Amino acid sequence: MSEPQPAMPDSLAQMKLFMEPRSIAVVGATRQSGPDSFNIVERLGSHGYRGRVYPVNPRADSIAGIKAYPDVASVPEKVDLAVIPVWERSAVPALIEQCIHAGIRAIVVVTQGFADGDAEGRQLQDRISRMARDAGVRLLGPNSLGVANPYLGLNTSFVPHRMEKIPLGVICQSGLFFSHLRSMPILGKGIDLGNGCDVHFAEALEYYENDPQTRVILLHVEGTNEGRRFAEVAGRVSRKKPIVALKSARSKEGVAAAQSHTGSLSSKDEVVRAALRQCGIAQAENIEELEDLAKAFLRLPLMKGRRVAIVSMSGGAGVMLVDACGEQGLKVAEPSPETRDKLRPLLPPWMHGMHPLDLWPITAHSGLSLSETALIGLRAFMADPNVDGVVLAFGTVFIEEALRIADALPALMETYRKPVSWWTATGADGEREAAIEKRGLAVFHGGERAVRALRKLADYWEFLQAC
Amino acid sequence: MSEPQPAMPDSLAQMKLFMEPRSIAVVGATRQSGPDSFNIVERLGSHGYRGRVYPVNPRADSIAGIKAYPDVASVPEKVDLAVIPVWERSAVPALIEQCIHAGIRAIVVVTQGFADGDAEGRQLQDRISRMARDAGVRLLGPNSLGVANPYLGLNTSFVPHRMEKIPLGVICQSGLFFSHLRSMPILGKGIDLGNGCDVHFAEALEYYENDPQTRVILLHVEGTNEGRRFAEVAGRVSRKKPIVALKSARSKEGVAAAQSHTGSLSSKDEVVRAALRQCGIAQAENIEELEDLAKAFLRLPLMKGRRVAIVSMSGGAGVMLVDACGEQGLKVAEPSPETRDKLRPLLPPWMHGMHPLDLWPITAHSGLSLSETALIGLRAFMADPNVDGVVLAFGTVFIEEALRIADALPALMETYRKPVSWWTATGADGEREAAIEKRGLAVFHGGERAVRALRKLADYWEFLQAC
Repeated sequence: MSEPQPAMPDSLAQMKLFMEPRSIAVVGATRQSGPDSFNIVERLGSHGYRGRVYPVNPRADSIAGIKAYPDVASVPEKVDLAVIPVWERSAVPALIEQCIHAGIRAIVVVTQGFADGDAEGRQLQDRISRMARDAGVRLLGPNSLGVANPYLGLNTSFVPHRMEKIPLGVICQSGLFFSHLRSMPILGKGIDLGNGCDVHFAEALEYYENDPQTRVILLHVEGTNEGRRFAEVAGRVSRKKPIVALKSARSKEGVAAAQSHTGSLSSKDEVVRAALRQCGIAQAENIEELEDLAKAFLRLPLMKGRRVAIVSMSGGAGVMLVDACGEQGLKVAEPSPETRDKLRPLLPPWMHGMHPLDLWPITAHSGLSLSETALIGLRAFMADPNVDGVVLAFGTVFIEEALRIADALPALMETYRKPVSWWTATGADGEREAAIEKRGLAVFHGGERAVRALRKLADYWEFLQAC
Repeated sequence: MSEPQPAMPDSLAQMKLFMEPRSIAVVGATRQSGPDSFNIVERLGSHGYRGRVYPVNPRADSIAGIKAYPDVASVPEKVDLAVIPVWERSAVPALIEQCIHAGIRAIVVVTQGFADGDAEGRQLQDRISRMARDAGVRLLGPNSLGVANPYLGLNTSFVPHRMEKIPLGVICQSGLFFSHLRSMPILGKGIDLGNGCDVHFAEALEYYENDPQTRVILLHVEGTNEGRRFAEVAGRVSRKKPIVALKSARSKEGVAAAQSHTGSLSSKDEVVRAALRQCGIAQAENIEELEDLAKAFLRLPLMKGRRVAIVSMSGGAGVMLVDACGEQGLKVAEPSPETRDKLRPLLPPWMHGMHPLDLWPITAHSGLSLSETALIGLRAFMADPNVDGVVLAFGTVFIEEALRIADALPALMETYRKPVSWWTATGADGEREAAIEKRGLAVFHGGERAVRALRKLADYWEFLQAC
């Protein structure tokens, strides 16, 4: 593949055709209905898209209750966006041709079997990208689920998307990221680059750079052939908004698998990762960490240093958190004399250490409740100039106690501009964690994960300072 | 601390006094009631313990509706087990003295501030362990939540335990493991060694070794001073039942924290880890992996080789799984000609790779449902002599499809004696995953985690072969 052309001046306007279309033609819409039909017209309706939708199918009068047209030329307006979901790759060039003639300037190609397939598919992909370039039309895909924009109820994929309006922008090379993931049920806006034969990372990044509804950007990268341009744009955007990236296709075998997945050229994993690092992009080693870091950047203040205080309902969890700090290059904070003076009266006389602050013996000795001792400790650490952030290990077994802490934390984070990451070490379950997170907090499902999140907040702070 | 004595011939009988007591005295039971009182007498009732319970408190006539006694001597029978939950450490020796005089042979000391505290606490601990040894009485703790046995509704801790009867035996040095954890709400039987001044790993292991209700053993290790004996017993037991271990207190700072948590001597992390490895014990790097591996050993057959087939609803997930196999030293399986012949008719003509097997293009091309294509692939791989295990990436967005697969998998695993680990890559939520797991399957919250579980099943198989 040749290096894609530099962005045209109107590339942002064209990205808006994808992300904020007022009208969509589904070219080659299926007549089938129901969950197994993966009917995009139906899906657009179920997500509440309020723009105009035109199904195109020569063998149907209507699809999902909407009047259908035999070809794009018959559609009564020049639509902003066309989506081509046909299964048969050989049908695609003619459909693109039709769209170009109809004056459509943004086209999603869902169809697979291009550079993700065989040599013939690769040629076919070159052909359609040439067609688009010559006509000044932009292609997203092929092998792409398209876009999602919860602010418009827009989801061009046949996979359900949780339409929650959170200021997160996703750019991915796999439909995997188009549904809700595990610990983050909400994915905000989404752009699936698929094989990325035309619209690629740089332009997707520029859309989010300029989008007031996006505060944090999340990338899934298998590979890219726009190397220099990617680094240039990503380096600029990451100074304005935090970017979190998961690089997959790492091993030799993974690279080969990526080749037949998106046709990506991803042979130099270390090079890509080094470039991401240089751009100040926080890297996640797996999907769960990607979700963790997105959550951390969305909900927590940055950490302006590397000294972590630990407050734990369990001595054993405290030990694990100390280990994790060491592994992440963070320091367990040395509390100031003021903090020591505040806490000493609560401690049993035999207890000298207060980092980590082990809540059980303190609670037993002081006669206070678990949440009272936790909050006294949290307040003291947040106010302490020797502390840059706090990790709290507090389970949800005693949920009322946990919620009392959760109620107080947002104001503490606001006042001191320091992050608190919360490990629900025991008794964790989805509903109880959701109740904590509803307060605007970030809950992590592992002590190392809670600590890693803090470390990435510190890394990003250092990157911004060095800019 | 001196090296503990070798186990006495009746040590198993004494462990049964802890784990299967017919009667319990709570010596120094609190008169308070409700969630913040951490009242063990109340807790024993709420978990349905059917043995006899005797609260001992000179200032109470009854506790939680049960007649109380002023001292252990007044209790009308020689109970199997005494639990001492008082907060004040200086009160403990006299209470132990009382118990010894009353003929009690198993005592849990919950009280903190011994070797986990200061020099004075360390001396106090030496004193009570000498007292016990001289009297032929066994101590669990101090600084221990005691034991849990769901088969008897027994939980001596003041933290609620989910009393599900699963054949898992936990041995830990932190109460953290006494409540339900995140992805494994069920912990089976539990023994919290606390500071381990008398009953320690070896005897706890021997109890589970001989317990027909325990199939898999789970260890949390901060440190131990019984080195050689531990290795001897663990090496023997792990040949009979799989053992999974989490070693914490790894860093210098973690070691210091462990010192003030359980008084553990854990300075040589690498030595302990090497010993665990030599004993054939599967090591987990964090709590989540500990839960993953417990689940894998409980529910999946061992993997008799290192060749993994991948079946994935998402090409992107497939790439990540290939990466993970490489990172774990597993091989992506090369399907046999028979498997290729079975699958080829379903594949679109441009699709040549079938490892990983990417379900979307196949489903689109074949006209079959997602679950039908998945099951054709799964059956072919399970029957393939070139495949030792399968990892499946299948989300729960299309839950009916997922459950159709889940219904068929247990029989396939039974027939071929090969494990299938399931990554619910997208759309995952607790209820839907629980519905899959209810079929006896193992769901993992990350592709690497699903692959790591398979790898540990293969490691253990190799260990058994080498024995």
